Amino acid sequence: MGRILRRFGKTAYAIVIFFAAVSVAFGGVRTEIEIPDIPGYLTLKCDLHLHTVYSDGAVWPTVRVDEAWTDGLDAIALTDHIEYLPHAEYGLSGRNRPFEIAKGRAAEAGIILINGGEITRSWPLGHSNAIFVPDVEMLNIEDARKSYEKAAELGAFVFWNHPGWRMPNEIPVWDEVQEDFYQSGLFQGIEIVNGETYYPLAFTWALDKNLTILGNSDAHNPVALDYEKNTVRHRPVTLVFAKERSEAGIHAALRERSTAVYHENTIMGKAEFLKPLATAILEVENPEIIIGERKYAVIKLTNHSCLDIELERGADECPLNLPMQVVIPHRSTAVFSVSGKLNDLVGQTLELPFTLTNFLVSPEQKLAIGLSIKLVPKTGN
Amino acid sequence: MGRILRRFGKTAYAIVIFFAAVSVAFGGVRTEIEIPDIPGYLTLKCDLHLHTVYSDGAVWPTVRVDEAWTDGLDAIALTDHIEYLPHAEYGLSGRNRPFEIAKGRAAEAGIILINGGEITRSWPLGHSNAIFVPDVEMLNIEDARKSYEKAAELGAFVFWNHPGWRMPNEIPVWDEVQEDFYQSGLFQGIEIVNGETYYPLAFTWALDKNLTILGNSDAHNPVALDYEKNTVRHRPVTLVFAKERSEAGIHAALRERSTAVYHENTIMGKAEFLKPLATAILEVENPEIIIGERKYAVIKLTNHSCLDIELERGADECPLNLPMQVVIPHRSTAVFSVSGKLNDLVGQTLELPFTLTNFLVSPEQKLAIGLSIKLVPKTGN
Amino acid sequence: MGRILRRFGKTAYAIVIFFAAVSVAFGGVRTEIEIPDIPGYLTLKCDLHLHTVYSDGAVWPTVRVDEAWTDGLDAIALTDHIEYLPHAEYGLSGRNRPFEIAKGRAAEAGIILINGGEITRSWPLGHSNAIFVPDVEMLNIEDARKSYEKAAELGAFVFWNHPGWRMPNEIPVWDEVQEDFYQSGLFQGIEIVNGETYYPLAFTWALDKNLTILGNSDAHNPVALDYEKNTVRHRPVTLVFAKERSEAGIHAALRERSTAVYHENTIMGKAEFLKPLATAILEVENPEIIIGERKYAVIKLTNHSCLDIELERGADECPLNLPMQVVIPHRSTAVFSVSGKLNDLVGQTLELPFTLTNFLVSPEQKLAIGLSIKLVPKTGN
Amino acid sequence: MGRILRRFGKTAYAIVIFFAAVSVAFGGVRTEIEIPDIPGYLTLKCDLHLHTVYSDGAVWPTVRVDEAWTDGLDAIALTDHIEYLPHAEYGLSGRNRPFEIAKGRAAEAGIILINGGEITRSWPLGHSNAIFVPDVEMLNIEDARKSYEKAAELGAFVFWNHPGWRMPNEIPVWDEVQEDFYQSGLFQGIEIVNGETYYPLAFTWALDKNLTILGNSDAHNPVALDYEKNTVRHRPVTLVFAKERSEAGIHAALRERSTAVYHENTIMGKAEFLKPLATAILEVENPEIIIGERKYAVIKLTNHSCLDIELERGADECPLNLPMQVVIPHRSTAVFSVSGKLNDLVGQTLELPFTLTNFLVSPEQKLAIGLSIKLVPKTGN
Repeated sequence: MGRILRRFGKTAYAIVIFFAAVSVAFGGVRTEIEIPDIPGYLTLKCDLHLHTVYSDGAVWPTVRVDEAWTDGLDAIALTDHIEYLPHAEYGLSGRNRPFEIAKGRAAEAGIILINGGEITRSWPLGHSNAIFVPDVEMLNIEDARKSYEKAAELGAFVFWNHPGWRMPNEIPVWDEVQEDFYQSGLFQGIEIVNGETYYPLAFTWALDKNLTILGNSDAHNPVALDYEKNTVRHRPVTLVFAKERSEAGIHAALRERSTAVYHENTIMGKAEFLKPLATAILEVENPEIIIGERKYAVIKLTNHSCLDIELERGADECPLNLPMQVVIPHRSTAVFSVSGKLNDLVGQTLELPFTLTNFLVSPEQKLAIGLSIKLVPKTGN
Repeated sequence: MGRILRRFGKTAYAIVIFFAAVSVAFGGVRTEIEIPDIPGYLTLKCDLHLHTVYSDGAVWPTVRVDEAWTDGLDAIALTDHIEYLPHAEYGLSGRNRPFEIAKGRAAEAGIILINGGEITRSWPLGHSNAIFVPDVEMLNIEDARKSYEKAAELGAFVFWNHPGWRMPNEIPVWDEVQEDFYQSGLFQGIEIVNGETYYPLAFTWALDKNLTILGNSDAHNPVALDYEKNTVRHRPVTLVFAKERSEAGIHAALRERSTAVYHENTIMGKAEFLKPLATAILEVENPEIIIGERKYAVIKLTNHSCLDIELERGADECPLNLPMQVVIPHRSTAVFSVSGKLNDLVGQTLELPFTLTNFLVSPEQKLAIGLSIKLVPKTGN
Repeated sequence: MGRILRRFGKTAYAIVIFFAAVSVAFGGVRTEIEIPDIPGYLTLKCDLHLHTVYSDGAVWPTVRVDEAWTDGLDAIALTDHIEYLPHAEYGLSGRNRPFEIAKGRAAEAGIILINGGEITRSWPLGHSNAIFVPDVEMLNIEDARKSYEKAAELGAFVFWNHPGWRMPNEIPVWDEVQEDFYQSGLFQGIEIVNGETYYPLAFTWALDKNLTILGNSDAHNPVALDYEKNTVRHRPVTLVFAKERSEAGIHAALRERSTAVYHENTIMGKAEFLKPLATAILEVENPEIIIGERKYAVIKLTNHSCLDIELERGADECPLNLPMQVVIPHRSTAVFSVSGKLNDLVGQTLELPFTLTNFLVSPEQKLAIGLSIKLVPKTGN
Repeated sequence: MGRILRRFGKTAYAIVIFFAAVSVAFGGVRTEIEIPDIPGYLTLKCDLHLHTVYSDGAVWPTVRVDEAWTDGLDAIALTDHIEYLPHAEYGLSGRNRPFEIAKGRAAEAGIILINGGEITRSWPLGHSNAIFVPDVEMLNIEDARKSYEKAAELGAFVFWNHPGWRMPNEIPVWDEVQEDFYQSGLFQGIEIVNGETYYPLAFTWALDKNLTILGNSDAHNPVALDYEKNTVRHRPVTLVFAKERSEAGIHAALRERSTAVYHENTIMGKAEFLKPLATAILEVENPEIIIGERKYAVIKLTNHSCLDIELERGADECPLNLPMQVVIPHRSTAVFSVSGKLNDLVGQTLELPFTLTNFLVSPEQKLAIGLSIKLVPKTGN
């Protein structure tokens, strides 16, 4: 995949010597994340927790834009630690610098770049990201509560990062300080996935306490060193269901809790978003099935997404015998058969009950769906 | 990929025991071959040379349908040898039997199944396929010319198979018998690709003598044992540019020479088809490029196909510096930059000259294309 | 992968016309299954349940040998249904024919080919394979018990196939007839995996009743149509721990219950075999770790297998902090760190407690292992 | 692949806060490059041209070590531009700093880290790397010749980088200044591959003028953003045939011209190294072939490397008919057949003549090899 990037890099590098101050020019190959829009919303793919050399990350800020382009993202937030700056001794400083360095590249690439910072405290408070911050330096306040209050005052969106980090068995604890800050409205979201770690309890809290659900990479390394681009090992992505593809659109959607998380081969979020998403992804190719002398009917089901979709026979009653499990690889069509007294059902429309094993509407519950088919009689010869 | 197939297979197998005479029920996962339609034509994907256990192949006829479904094909022809029947001693006979056995499955799968046979003679005549044959038994005639004449009488389409097979260095020879049969109109097409072998000279002949271009697998083994499904190692496919998706539509298109060949990562055929195909595949995402103070402009080029597209700087004059090479992996967008006196060109529409290295309009010539961009001035802010 | 096969196929096909009665000559590319031998045993990879066109399968018998070669197997058994012969009407008959047709190819490929048949009855008895059968026709007996007794008399090894097939939720039932036949020694093994289905209860029975554990594909289709060759979607394999690579060696090992099952990314079997297998697969690259001023030590762990190995922190006490989870992709080396009061432990050898999440010694229990490291003091400067 | 890295990263990150000054701890998964040793030499895999944030690269110096570990390298050189320091305005300076920052990580990972710098001049001189430099600051001399002379004085090894860069059609020009410096012994090697660009003319020069052959990535971006790890799209690697795995061993081998280049699916270098390498990679599994009544013999050929090896029938005379082409995918065994008057040749040892199409001993010439087989008579029954 690097071919065009390298070539372009070299050509542009020549230019760079004479005209610009960026190190390597924008280039590369983009592959879209195929998760469709839903009625009334665009489905934006976002990673809202990223580090650079300006705190303890290992890449120049522009790399985060190039990676976002490559990985098919719409938006990223740069969220270096506000208080932990190990590269300062090497000369790197300035809490808005990553954003300033990367914003030209983001404009060129068409990536929405969001300025932010990670308010970094010890436990039990832990770390939170404040994003949509006009000036991150203003959050560099010793008193933690005051820092959060300043974020609120600046109109930032604040979410609790990796809530189980350094806890026994990585199980998060909702301490007094969280309850206090939550009651005061000082944070509005929570990462239920951070890097490779999924926090089921945080998912439950998000649903119960009406917090915005997020899943981010928290990448310190180059993303492509830690992740692959396949169906399972991609970086986690916050799916933002937004009215428009813009920074304002994302900000509004986060405030409205209109998100889900795409982690490994799973989507996690509220049923109100996952249900239309499933409907947009799965299509019965032959919704009208002609019933002849056969005792079984063949159904062709297409998966319009980059996930490998897994269906299980649902718990609801169904007059037909359904397969126990159906797997439809990404961007493919699977065939399965249903059997039963088909002739008795001619003329009826049935909702075949399935559950999507990789769509979680809570840590314990998979999304239930019905695949609609109509049994029609064979006509003429 | 086998998951759903196995499960379905078992369920259906149970049914089979009681109701049917087929061995394994239709199932599996289909992935489309992403080569788009062109204006005025559907681009049908066909493999018109396949063997079964009924001659010297190793699979039951229905397997050819399942493989076609899996591989994203629209149509296949079953073309067992008419004269070479090594499994007859095991009890298998009947030159229309493969078609009869497989046609129910083809209807279920939505695959267009074409009946045919391979007229198998020694050199210099060699082998030819006759397809769209209502009764293959009628071609079982000792005199080769009479067999071809019968095929013509039956309205069959006849093409010369693997013309370089068993020739020194696999270079085909246009012998007297070919000239004779060609002058008599006894064959209308030629395989320029058979299995993994490409015959450049056959491609030249096809262009010079107005023969239909074909590329087929000639599979004897299970296709998935010999090929993979990736961009390079797929089975060869005849692209048929047809007015309708039907047996008649394919027959008409073959007669009109409206075909190309998709072999490994290359498409080969006449420029009149490859040019609109390239246009349908490649899209400049930002056709209007705003020229500001920069000395270079970034172009985003999307590849809407399953091929990895390779562009080279074309030979035509261009006022801009273009990259020597651009590679766009399948279903991706690549970025590259062009530089030059952009400000002098504002307001102009340029055709950036490139050649597609994997689109061959003859054995020696790659397709030339122009990518259209308009340079527009930056306005206000 | 098909390249060499096709070329060879064609060359040999030419020969075939004049000299042989096989359809397509042996060819293809073999990739070994990398699961190492264990002390005292060779680890043979076997698929002991396969169908051909001679019952309700879809491939010519030689295809099963070619597939075995390609997939890196040592041995296969051909086990067509004895009583269910849907292709007989097409002229195919003879219960030893598949073996006779394929044995020459097996000798050429170096694949151990075992003759067998599937004794096919309705429920509750279901289906069993009898393998190592000199003449399968002798098992064609109407009375089921007599068929099993004849198999015993002929020295066959008999195992119960897909025990949960057609049961509600695919959960097997140990009926009176199984108890009766088991008490009479009429079957000695059981499939705990058949195709894509895993029967945990059958695994429990195998352990409790001392039955040989088997996992087979039961392929009717071409294997490569239903499976891929990657770490997860390969066909199931019975690992036979044998004293020699021969039919007799496999027969003896099956009688001695010396087997395990390799299914998806998991190995299932008795701890007495899985423990040495884990030891042969996992190697600490730096077993002597030099302890300096650091508070953590880096361990490099190599995975000498084709599985993606997953380790979890074990339940046993350990003076060091271990990571919760370590994943080592196939044929790779992973690095992880352990921390704690390393200086207090210098000179000690520790067994770091882990469990292998993809090594099951029962349906509920994962294999526990200890990774041995010695903490040595830093010497010299 | 990122799993273990992330987990480890987080654990170590906790430590980092309190004890260390590195940003992200060492971790990740390593996959070896399977190119074997040859008699008398270790085959070390090296990338001797890499940039970091300290000149115009985009990664922190430790990333180059992590990437080297991940990619299966033995050694890397850090070669930031000496004169072009676009990030100096952001506070980053010090020409030995990248080496100092990364050396602890290299020790931990077992990667040989070589200090160096890129002497960066305009054309016709262009860019050269000086490596094995104890203090890169000493090469920061305005006069180019003096900088090269200082490198020589310091015992550095110097090679000309990307010699065709910015030349028309990327064809290098051997200018007066190269001739002068070459005659003065101021450079000893040349990149015949840089990034994705191969310079055939530089390969010719290297052979004619006895220059050390190199192929390096010249990575500015994260390597995994520009390259993949598969057989074709990996970063270019200089294969160093060394007497020992150490910095001194590499330095000696470079001075002795004992190198080759591994680029895409090709190895390029002198026949004296490529011949033993081919012998170490290719193994005939059945060197003694029993000749019975068959007219053909089956040969099994194993490829012990990560390349997909391609053989073509060689030009030399051979009493047997050989296939035109044989492809053996990485780490696999291919089967092909040879035919002819085998019975007349019994008792003879034959060298079957092939050329390796992906082993280039000059831009125009592929390596010729002979596969040794002995035809032995069938004995006994």
